Amino acid sequence: MNIGIVGLGLIGGSIGLDLRALGYQVFGVSRRNQTCQKAIALGAVDEASLELSLLSIADLIFICTPISIIIPTLEQLIPFISPSAILTDVGSVKKPIVEGVSQIWPNFVGGHPMAGKAESGIEVAQLGLFRDRPYVLTPTENTPLESVEKVEAIVSLLQSQVYFCNPYEHDRAVAWISHLPVMASASLISACMSETHPTVVKLAQELASSGFRDTSRVGGGNPELGRMMAQYNRLEVLRSLYSFREEINRFIEDIEQENWQIIEEKLSSTEQSRKLFLQE
Amino acid sequence: MNIGIVGLGLIGGSIGLDLRALGYQVFGVSRRNQTCQKAIALGAVDEASLELSLLSIADLIFICTPISIIIPTLEQLIPFISPSAILTDVGSVKKPIVEGVSQIWPNFVGGHPMAGKAESGIEVAQLGLFRDRPYVLTPTENTPLESVEKVEAIVSLLQSQVYFCNPYEHDRAVAWISHLPVMASASLISACMSETHPTVVKLAQELASSGFRDTSRVGGGNPELGRMMAQYNRLEVLRSLYSFREEINRFIEDIEQENWQIIEEKLSSTEQSRKLFLQE
Repeated sequence: MNIGIVGLGLIGGSIGLDLRALGYQVFGVSRRNQTCQKAIALGAVDEASLELSLLSIADLIFICTPISIIIPTLEQLIPFISPSAILTDVGSVKKPIVEGVSQIWPNFVGGHPMAGKAESGIEVAQLGLFRDRPYVLTPTENTPLESVEKVEAIVSLLQSQVYFCNPYEHDRAVAWISHLPVMASASLISACMSETHPTVVKLAQELASSGFRDTSRVGGGNPELGRMMAQYNRLEVLRSLYSFREEINRFIEDIEQENWQIIEEKLSSTEQSRKLFLQE
Repeated sequence: MNIGIVGLGLIGGSIGLDLRALGYQVFGVSRRNQTCQKAIALGAVDEASLELSLLSIADLIFICTPISIIIPTLEQLIPFISPSAILTDVGSVKKPIVEGVSQIWPNFVGGHPMAGKAESGIEVAQLGLFRDRPYVLTPTENTPLESVEKVEAIVSLLQSQVYFCNPYEHDRAVAWISHLPVMASASLISACMSETHPTVVKLAQELASSGFRDTSRVGGGNPELGRMMAQYNRLEVLRSLYSFREEINRFIEDIEQENWQIIEEKLSSTEQSRKLFLQE
């Protein structure tokens, strides 16, 4: 089975490194010649090109572009690929992608490998990036079962933990645990920047430590990615933000009314609840 | 100079370990006999007792109890100590402590070592806990200068980075970078727990990863400590929460109105701003 990859960044490059190490022939397409050269030099692909026609011999193609150009890329790709080619993507929102693609290439399995790094680009691609990490597949009732099985088999070779759900469930779940944290964390940074007392500003910057560092991390991350979350997962992100705002309002009310016991109980409850998300 | 420590937990115990290693005689008081025995066994104190009278020979006394009992502890301590004894505390809120204590023992220097661990108790006390960490001192215009200098000298021996400010500035700064993160982070966990769709709940718990882990960490921490922040730093925590709520409302509005460019600019700005707090 020949593997195609469109978009040779951290994710695309890392998929290539793993699958080549497993003996697959990997063909990569990038918009930049420099990236093609790097991908070859790093061993992430066997061949690379600026031209999508390179992927005419691919049996399974990973679309690893930014989410905003997944569908346009796929439309450009279709004239060149084999009628039996299976397509999959790695976008972090699934419903709009799966709905859009199903119109034009039914042999498509939506995917979302939940692995990453602070840095991006082919330079930081690495073997084993997906090992022990979740890899969500979101087939629909119209997705050919055989294609789902083939994608599952390949993704399992990356040593990922494979999860199946429908695109809506995926988008709703990641709104809570991935997209809402970005918006909450960014709002924390913005709020801190609203302080105007010069001594307090300086002191806050000097004293900020692990609590601030961790809570603000994802809000200080890739702005384009954050915008895509909001844009492509708009309804679910809004739903999670409304709920978050209610919680903030409840906190404010309890502090205004000096309900200290209630606050301690709430914090005991969040201490316990957090463990549900972080079984290891 | 003899050192006294009331409250032999992580902070009190670690101060004792460092100062004994530097050759000081350290005397510790705890409410529990078991803790006294452990403190001696671990080398955190030379002598330990349930009785505050042990500290009659101390020249400088660290009050390392939970913030809610700093002032009651100090009131009980006063009958036993030398008239020239210097008192200092390690509470994470300074204005109510400094105001309360100044009435009853003017020879007091408010302090806040900004070091900690996930665990608490004498068992996890460690040498060098304060090394390269901020240690804030909050003398007022009525604090004897000589006492401030003595406390500064001792705290410098812990290899802390010593900062001076007034109690109000301290409380306002830590509200932003330490207390608000706790309330925002706890609200994130509560919001996630409001999801009722069973498949989504299960999926969110399975997929939660480093983004959720980091953003939720301080909201899943010690509930008593979180309550104390809210209770003792009420006005500043409220101020920071009002500002945070405004930022959340702005995010919601921008997503509702599909102001994607504004959202990306906001996230670029938080990406830059975060660096101001984390110079290393």
